[in-house]
Amino acid sequence: MNSDNSHLFNLVQVKGTWIRQNEQDRVQEGKWSDAKIYEDKSKHGVSWTVVSPVVFTYRVVQCQNILDPENDTLLWGHLGSHQRAVGKSKPIKRFVVIDETVNRLYGSQVTRYFEARKVIHKILPLPTTEENKSMELVTAILEAVHQFGIDRRSEPIIAIGGGVCLDVVGLAASLYRRRTPYIRVPTTLLSYVDASVGAKTGVNFAGGKNKLGSYVPPAATFLDCAFFQTLPQRQISNGLAEMLKMALMKHRGLFRLLEANGKELLFAKMQPLESRESSEQEDAASAARRIAIETMLEELAPNLWEDDLDRLVDFGHLISPELEMRVLPTLLHGEAVNIDMSFMVYVAHTKGLLTADEKDRILACMLGLQLPVWHQDCTLALVQKSLQERMRHSAGSLRMPLPTGIEKVEIFHDMIEDGVLHQAYQRWTDELSCHSEQQT
Amino acid sequence: MNSDNSHLFNLVQVKGTWIRQNEQDRVQEGKWSDAKIYEDKSKHGVSWTVVSPVVFTYRVVQCQNILDPENDTLLWGHLGSHQRAVGKSKPIKRFVVIDETVNRLYGSQVTRYFEARKVIHKILPLPTTEENKSMELVTAILEAVHQFGIDRRSEPIIAIGGGVCLDVVGLAASLYRRRTPYIRVPTTLLSYVDASVGAKTGVNFAGGKNKLGSYVPPAATFLDCAFFQTLPQRQISNGLAEMLKMALMKHRGLFRLLEANGKELLFAKMQPLESRESSEQEDAASAARRIAIETMLEELAPNLWEDDLDRLVDFGHLISPELEMRVLPTLLHGEAVNIDMSFMVYVAHTKGLLTADEKDRILACMLGLQLPVWHQDCTLALVQKSLQERMRHSAGSLRMPLPTGIEKVEIFHDMIEDGVLHQAYQRWTDELSCHSEQQT
Repeated sequence: MNSDNSHLFNLVQVKGTWIRQNEQDRVQEGKWSDAKIYEDKSKHGVSWTVVSPVVFTYRVVQCQNILDPENDTLLWGHLGSHQRAVGKSKPIKRFVVIDETVNRLYGSQVTRYFEARKVIHKILPLPTTEENKSMELVTAILEAVHQFGIDRRSEPIIAIGGGVCLDVVGLAASLYRRRTPYIRVPTTLLSYVDASVGAKTGVNFAGGKNKLGSYVPPAATFLDCAFFQTLPQRQISNGLAEMLKMALMKHRGLFRLLEANGKELLFAKMQPLESRESSEQEDAASAARRIAIETMLEELAPNLWEDDLDRLVDFGHLISPELEMRVLPTLLHGEAVNIDMSFMVYVAHTKGLLTADEKDRILACMLGLQLPVWHQDCTLALVQKSLQERMRHSAGSLRMPLPTGIEKVEIFHDMIEDGVLHQAYQRWTDELSCHSEQQT
Repeated sequence: MNSDNSHLFNLVQVKGTWIRQNEQDRVQEGKWSDAKIYEDKSKHGVSWTVVSPVVFTYRVVQCQNILDPENDTLLWGHLGSHQRAVGKSKPIKRFVVIDETVNRLYGSQVTRYFEARKVIHKILPLPTTEENKSMELVTAILEAVHQFGIDRRSEPIIAIGGGVCLDVVGLAASLYRRRTPYIRVPTTLLSYVDASVGAKTGVNFAGGKNKLGSYVPPAATFLDCAFFQTLPQRQISNGLAEMLKMALMKHRGLFRLLEANGKELLFAKMQPLESRESSEQEDAASAARRIAIETMLEELAPNLWEDDLDRLVDFGHLISPELEMRVLPTLLHGEAVNIDMSFMVYVAHTKGLLTADEKDRILACMLGLQLPVWHQDCTLALVQKSLQERMRHSAGSLRMPLPTGIEKVEIFHDMIEDGVLHQAYQRWTDELSCHSEQQT
């Protein structure tokens, strides 16, 4: 950690007071901390290095009928059964932020839920669109929360909506009194498999996507896929793009599910496919949703604060932020991600990492999910700018995830050679620009 | 953690991909994570509990002549010697936020430092007073940082100033790209021993002190006590209040130093006392500063995100936030803290925790440090409101640190009985209101 002269201290709490202890004398009785302090002494004074692990715990819970007043989840699902009994002894208070569109569709059910449960509540509907995803929205939430008054420890703020809503509320909660617990209830397929699973919060700033934010996970995320029934088809495709990302990254089974059942999943809006429910077997929609979450958790849990810069989950996220912000509101997030992935497939193919068959199979799957695979505003200049930006913020390495097979993505560190980039871009445009009319 | 049916997975990284592994089969070769995923299956679906430790590392470094161009600390002191060589190969860029008053005194030296080192730099002077400590100031910093452009990984934002400056810059940096490293250079005694040492950042909001903020430690804090030479005496007293807090909390040696040398330390502005430098012995000022930092680090390092609500360091911080904000800008932070501690000494004495001798000795020390011990706006109503607020935000327990001896503070959980509170308040006012003219 430090120089050879450094002295390591462990920390032990005795009668409420923390005391430094030399590494060798672990004799003191008391509560030991995992934190350590290294001390160096020189003629200029002392220097200390603090190494302190903070443990984040959060729950991601699949449930049904979350707005049914009989269902405890929304109020208590973030706690273990032991803690619930304690919490129930005093009047319950909840602050809820809900997306305006979701409020039109489900607002009366939400109100009915809290009324039936006799919860003191305030419901704040907000236009949580990508264009409004700003600090101003965060401030509006904070002012309303402050006026309503909540217990920073036991009254989590609830967010009901898509990814923008969850990100904005997460940031507000992480700022309020330096950290107030919050709960995510995703209502879109995209936010169900993506924004719900990790620790990231954020807003756009100075024209840049998610330029401000924090890494503070929710107390819990409650996943109820029934909300998808009121989504337009395009929003289902949008979510399927992030699921496809996980499939291409690391799960052949998920890729096969999407490849074989894409249309069916899309038209059934990712609801459990009834016909198969008689058997014990998990239906394709449920399996696809479960695997997407499982694989995402695998990749995010060990790297909650993104200290490791080599992240497979960045696949599809190198060019897409710039593209998405530039054409706002033309492309949905998953659509921009898919265009990014589609281009990366061509880069990988051009570099000889992917066969023509594999490339075509991936593209066919994307088209089957009704996702855009090319966009006129995704120019070579935009691609180059994005990769340079990436280089600048990734400690001088590109760290570019590229597919090296149907369900395998690997990280590449060196800047892609200009020749390869040009050739890939040309092929991509030649073969796919004909599909550009489909979505926009 | 979860129910008995829960299944524990560890996580191992193999060829760049994270894979879940059953607890029992730790056979896979690869990099293991400390994160864990618990999985429960029920008829409603799956629920996962993620437990993920994030390790925070930061340095607190005493140094001399930090603005001397020969001194590497300001540019590279946050890195280990190994990392420095790498960093030095490309042009250096630094964004600096400096308090307006500090800029008047040291601005030209700061500029000279960066010019001499050929660092591309932007220096932003701001009026970082308690009254301006707001999200607006954070936004102003973010806009300037964004315009200047920095590498999120290797170009830390530098804050030079008192506690408000360090808190505001810390919050801005923790928000920018979800976390940009920052460096604290405290120029007041108070921020040297207090704001510099832990992870807290913050701004005031809706009339409440530090109601918004985050827990993100700096990459490093550089401590140069030479800045104190230009501080008014009152600012030295202000810092001595937080040092006295640490003494009363847990360090008899520090209390004796302050008790015996208070006046001398105050008039020498906490500079090393030259007369003793000839010997090998540490002088009183250096010892007092060192012990204050050491004891503070002991208490903060194991509880960086304040997950443990029982915090001795809250001594003097139950009534003072409300008092400080109410009479803004009449009282400095340390002055408000001292008035709070002085009152708590009377509560402790009334409860029989502290003898009359101990009480008088503590009070004499406070007066020796030229700190206010009573204030007319610290009414019984304000005290009661503050304690109720505390109860509400501490999970239903008061968690009130009270002195139980000269260098011992303990946490008390139950609300102080009305009788005790009234009696303590009456005695406090009777005995100390005569000292009220001294400071304000």
